Amino acid sequence: MNFENLLAPRTGNIKASAIRELLSVAKRPGMISLGGGYPAPESFPVDILNELTAKVLDKYGSKALQYDATEGFMPLREALTIYLQKKNIRVSAENILITSGSQGFLDAIGKVLISKGDRVAVEAPTYLGALQAFNAYEAEYIRMDTDGKGLIPESLEETLQSGNIKFIYLVPTFQNPTGKTIPMERREKIAEIIRTHDALLVEDDPYGDLRFRGTPVPPIKTLAPENVIYTSTLSKVFAPGLRIGFFIAPEDIVKWMVRVKQGVDLHTSTFNQALAAEYLSAGYLDKQMPKIINIYQPRQKVMLHALDKYFPDSFNWSKPDGGMFIWAEGPEGVDMEDIFFKAVERNVVYVPGKFFFTKKGEGIETLRLNYSNADEEKIEKAIKILSEVIKGEIRRS
Amino acid sequence: MNFENLLAPRTGNIKASAIRELLSVAKRPGMISLGGGYPAPESFPVDILNELTAKVLDKYGSKALQYDATEGFMPLREALTIYLQKKNIRVSAENILITSGSQGFLDAIGKVLISKGDRVAVEAPTYLGALQAFNAYEAEYIRMDTDGKGLIPESLEETLQSGNIKFIYLVPTFQNPTGKTIPMERREKIAEIIRTHDALLVEDDPYGDLRFRGTPVPPIKTLAPENVIYTSTLSKVFAPGLRIGFFIAPEDIVKWMVRVKQGVDLHTSTFNQALAAEYLSAGYLDKQMPKIINIYQPRQKVMLHALDKYFPDSFNWSKPDGGMFIWAEGPEGVDMEDIFFKAVERNVVYVPGKFFFTKKGEGIETLRLNYSNADEEKIEKAIKILSEVIKGEIRRS
Repeated sequence: MNFENLLAPRTGNIKASAIRELLSVAKRPGMISLGGGYPAPESFPVDILNELTAKVLDKYGSKALQYDATEGFMPLREALTIYLQKKNIRVSAENILITSGSQGFLDAIGKVLISKGDRVAVEAPTYLGALQAFNAYEAEYIRMDTDGKGLIPESLEETLQSGNIKFIYLVPTFQNPTGKTIPMERREKIAEIIRTHDALLVEDDPYGDLRFRGTPVPPIKTLAPENVIYTSTLSKVFAPGLRIGFFIAPEDIVKWMVRVKQGVDLHTSTFNQALAAEYLSAGYLDKQMPKIINIYQPRQKVMLHALDKYFPDSFNWSKPDGGMFIWAEGPEGVDMEDIFFKAVERNVVYVPGKFFFTKKGEGIETLRLNYSNADEEKIEKAIKILSEVIKGEIRRS
Repeated sequence: MNFENLLAPRTGNIKASAIRELLSVAKRPGMISLGGGYPAPESFPVDILNELTAKVLDKYGSKALQYDATEGFMPLREALTIYLQKKNIRVSAENILITSGSQGFLDAIGKVLISKGDRVAVEAPTYLGALQAFNAYEAEYIRMDTDGKGLIPESLEETLQSGNIKFIYLVPTFQNPTGKTIPMERREKIAEIIRTHDALLVEDDPYGDLRFRGTPVPPIKTLAPENVIYTSTLSKVFAPGLRIGFFIAPEDIVKWMVRVKQGVDLHTSTFNQALAAEYLSAGYLDKQMPKIINIYQPRQKVMLHALDKYFPDSFNWSKPDGGMFIWAEGPEGVDMEDIFFKAVERNVVYVPGKFFFTKKGEGIETLRLNYSNADEEKIEKAIKILSEVIKGEIRRS
């Protein structure tokens, strides 16, 4: 039986993740991965999960195993109000909706808003998971310029003036892939621009808590509350395997998000939501956060130091105050996808930067380096090897 | 800011679940619900969850909390091969894919296959959750006739002859909403018909294990393996709050399902999949199943007995060998949605049957009765009250 002819036309547009294919080699023994965006397994609170489970069963009993509201498990939504207050976001539990990871949010907002050909404005480069979610609804992308401080407000202004933008998608803090954070002054400009244009911004903030130094910058949500859907996840501060994301949106969008989510997965795992509720409300997160930072900060330090020591002078890279990624840019003519395959031969993987751009031909000379999933020794070694490979290729060309 | 004008045209088609709105009254104190399809909380293995958690953390450590493959957690897929062998389905672990509940499967297959106006053939009446998933992709429905033995094969044949059916959706065993099971002879005919027409059948089997008496009937998947996508869930034999579903499909469909699922939720909760793997492979399910049956069987018995004792003679109802539902049909002219509101006044809820039909005007005189979520005493009482309400209404008209 031939099923290919049964596929919906949209399905053919859903490409296999190129990164996923590339990184399949990362599992080979001996490979050092600076590729995927996996949190350090050592950062997970494995040792307290038995305790959390016991508390959840004691407190909620069979309710933690039963079907629950599509909107989310109320004790978690209540715990998140406190968590969000620390980011200056003041909302009631009813306004916080739970999703199956941020990916669950990205899919739902795509389903609610995007029709074939609708234009979504994104940073160049931008987060791939968002593109993957929106591609399924046949979005088109308008790329906006960025520099060392992230999105350039003038580029946003121009984009909105060109008209017909369904919504803007940004990761303003410790962005994936660049690690860059949009500073307060720009956030205020961005907030003003979207208010003036009555535009809708999706602010994705998975990394905000992973700050190693400097002062936290408030979410754009706090500056233009009515124009921003704020979304985040517990994947980086609890455990990604639990698949807990959440969002805050204007009421008339929430209504549709709930209907859509009901058709997609009924609701997010009650048990995991109950574990997360307990993790947040009983103070486990507050104890865990310094431990997580203490794992990532030295890894980033070693990577930055190794880049300084080994990388070719013709390369520049970001020096983020937190998050999981460093972004590097080589001189024109260097093809970081070509070099990827040479690096694999020497047991080092990273992600060629071109995959984070929506416009073909952009980002050929760029790369994303992840430091959350390898220890300091391996990071130092991998950067040294990668530098040798790059230098060898530059010499040859 | 007005967001309604940003909605994708498809979104307006996604109706709020009428049942959900109706059943919102079920939460009022004193209400007896024969409405929703919730498993009995007493059927959940709450007492073993601490043990399961400890075993999972011991066996898999941080791996149980990390991101995992979109296809599913391998130990669960391996455990499911054994589980499925008992249903005569012989597949390797690689061919079993995990979803976030069966709803996650229904959404993904809709996304992969359905474009606006595509025709999906369904039983009349059929499962609402499937319609809700498919509605988001703007499916149209072709209703097929059923009788006391479920789908009438001749109706399937006619439907396929009419052409242009994307796929057929069936719940062949202890169907929701009717509780009916398609007997072996009909399954063989159905298998032959779909093979002849080279048609694709989605066989949804969430209730197959809840058999109180009689011999299990093999899934249609075993009779036409290449034409059937088989899907099921652990919601009724473990816990719905963990959101674990699974499916087996031809390889060229699996490829697209995985890509689609990646954009929707990356993967299903690793931790919950690990719990399920342990629940299945360490023999907990085998011990739990008789307990579950011992809760439902007497409830169904009491309901059937109460229907015999109290219900008007002009009503007929199904006597299923298992599952969670009884389907009742009144004489023409009785409006079970009208009667619903009178029953609510007397603290009893059920689901008016019309909501399970895709064609307007069908099923006005029908109702679905759930017996899994109230104890025997309440079921007896509720059926008695409901009978009085119905008799009162019939007398008045």
